[in-house]
Parts: sequence; C-alpha cells; structure tokens
Amino acid sequence: MELLKERIRKDGIIKEGNVLKVDSFLNHQMDIQFLEEIGKEFKRRFADAEITKILTIEASGIGIACIAARYFNVPVVFAKKNQTKNIAGEVYTAKVESFTHGRTYDIIVSQQFLNKEDKILIIDDFLANGQALIGLSKLVEAAGATLAGAGIVIEKGFQPGGKMIRDMGIRLESLAIIESMDEQTGCTFRQ
Amino acid sequence: MELLKERIRKDGIIKEGNVLKVDSFLNHQMDIQFLEEIGKEFKRRFADAEITKILTIEASGIGIACIAARYFNVPVVFAKKNQTKNIAGEVYTAKVESFTHGRTYDIIVSQQFLNKEDKILIIDDFLANGQALIGLSKLVEAAGATLAGAGIVIEKGFQPGGKMIRDMGIRLESLAIIESMDEQTGCTFRQ
Repeated sequence: MELLKERIRKDGIIKEGNVLKVDSFLNHQMDIQFLEEIGKEFKRRFADAEITKILTIEASGIGIACIAARYFNVPVVFAKKNQTKNIAGEVYTAKVESFTHGRTYDIIVSQQFLNKEDKILIIDDFLANGQALIGLSKLVEAAGATLAGAGIVIEKGFQPGGKMIRDMGIRLESLAIIESMDEQTGCTFRQ
Repeated sequence: MELLKERIRKDGIIKEGNVLKVDSFLNHQMDIQFLEEIGKEFKRRFADAEITKILTIEASGIGIACIAARYFNVPVVFAKKNQTKNIAGEVYTAKVESFTHGRTYDIIVSQQFLNKEDKILIIDDFLANGQALIGLSKLVEAAGATLAGAGIVIEKGFQPGGKMIRDMGIRLESLAIIESMDEQTGCTFRQ
C-alpha cells in the first residue's frame, strides 16, 4: 500500500534494535482519516472472504480494527491481555510470549463472542515474531470458527513471524512489509 | 440517548455488586454501527466546542473514541496504563486508583501528542468513581491544553464520579446515567 509506505517514510522513526515508531499516526496518536484508507485496503484484499467478525488484541489493534470494521459491516471483538473482573463466564485463552516486553501473558476472549459459524479476520498493527497472531489464531480454533485470514498494517519482514504464519497456511495480507531498516538510510520495503 | 438506554435494557447484564456488563456491544465485542450512533451523539452535544483532539484510555475507550473521531474529524490519542518500551521520550503521567481492580496504576501519554493549542475532548465508556477521568484531565492540564469536556457513554449516577467531575467545573456529557440498578428489576435511568 503506497500511501502507507509514504507515511512510514515521512513519519516513522527508526530506533536502535529494529524499533520502528509509528506512534504519531498509528498506535498512540491515531490519524483516523488515514485509518480509513487502511480499512478500505483491508476490505479490498479480503472482499471475497465473507467475514462475519473482526478479532484483534488490546490495545493498539482496537482502533485500526474498529475503523476497518465499518467497511466489512461486522462487529469487532478484542482479546484482553489479562484476566479482569469484568470478564465473567467461560473464556478461551492462549499464551503469548512477548519478545518486546520479555514476558509471557495470557490472551482471553469470552466464549460467547466467537462462534462456530464465524468467519474471522484477525487485524493487528504489527507482525514481527508472530506470537500474538498465533495466539489469536488459537482462540479462533478453540471456538471452532473459521480463520479467513489476518490483516496486518506493518510486517517486519526480517523477523520470522510472517514466514511462520504463511507456512501454517494462514492467508496473510500485510499492507507494508519492511525488508530492512536503518537509522541512517530508513526503511526498505519488500516489492 | 434513548437508543442507548434501550440497548442497555435489552443487552446489559446486571451482576452482583453494581456491575453492569455491556460487553456484547460496547467494550469487549463492539457493535460498530451502534458506536456510530454514539459518535454522532457526542458530536451533537459538543458541536460548539471546536475540538482538536480526542483523548481516551486503553483499552475499552479506544474503539468508541476512534468512531466518534470520524464525526469531529480529529485524531485520537490514547493514554497507556503501563510504561512500555514503546513510549520513548518525554511523557505526561498521572496516578489512577482503580476500585474495580483494587490497585493504583500510572497513565501515560507522550508529550508530543498533547499541545497547548489543543482543545481536548475526553471520551470513555464508563464513569463510576471518576478516577480515570480525573487522571486524564490531569494529563490535559499538564500539557497546558484546554479541556473542552468529557463524553461518557454510561455514567453510574449512584457512584460519586459524576458529581465530583461536575463540581470541578468540567463539562460532562453522559449519554445514559443510571440512577439505580437491580438484578431483578433492571436499570433506572436519570431523566
């Protein structure tokens, strides 16, 4: 998605350790008009998929998923990262190892919001090691729902998640795939 | 907002300890078409306020704020609940005591996304004890920005937050105010 690549080039900030900060428009401050273009592009790529629900994970996936959901005309469910008093009843859970934060956490979704009849599109902001996405796909599997695919805004193509997900046979659409990045020379995108 | 009260009556579940679960449409699964009606109503109530930015807090405020932002044509910034590696640089912070979770946590926003020139609308799903909202208002104050008001979907009118916020002189628009609730007889709304 050319508009996204341009925006990353213009407003993305590369930090040591392969960190790409896009928090001025994507995941801390959110440019809603820009998210609408992202949502339209996800719809274009999954137009054939008869999605019934979008699944994402707190916190930075939620805004992207909600705006995208307008184009699919479906509800959004977000997985929570910690058990809280506010989820009652039966839940599906999966463990996710976060390399960024150096810890393992549970992701949780109420069973009543994922059903066998659902065709699920997972949406998230980043794909790097793929652990969050694999965790979300396990929630879909546990519900007996169909995983139609995953829509990712930015894939770090030099990390193993993308290949792992594709090798699992999951339909993966990443709107920008970064091959390499460098504090001096910027991002190089996969063609 | 009549549509909201109807939806709470239809799909809200009242649990012991004054817990109102609206997670089938508002804050776990999100009915996006319904959130659009909520967003329009916030815009109607703050039409005169020349909002430049919406501020919310992760996680359940984000979807509501993003959909509402379409009607204001402004960006959304969400405060984070924990320091992460992904916020670099200078931040504004405030302490929030959560009665629901029985703990105190920091809320954090990057200084670069709240500016003196901003007229901020705070949006959140619930107002009960008002601690999160007061924390958010402190972030706005720390930035030297103007707090135009707060838009809340559901105010628990029998808890002290609403009165406290109004007594502070903050313009507060709650789309539904619950006077009392009971597992048998349901919710009574303030007129």
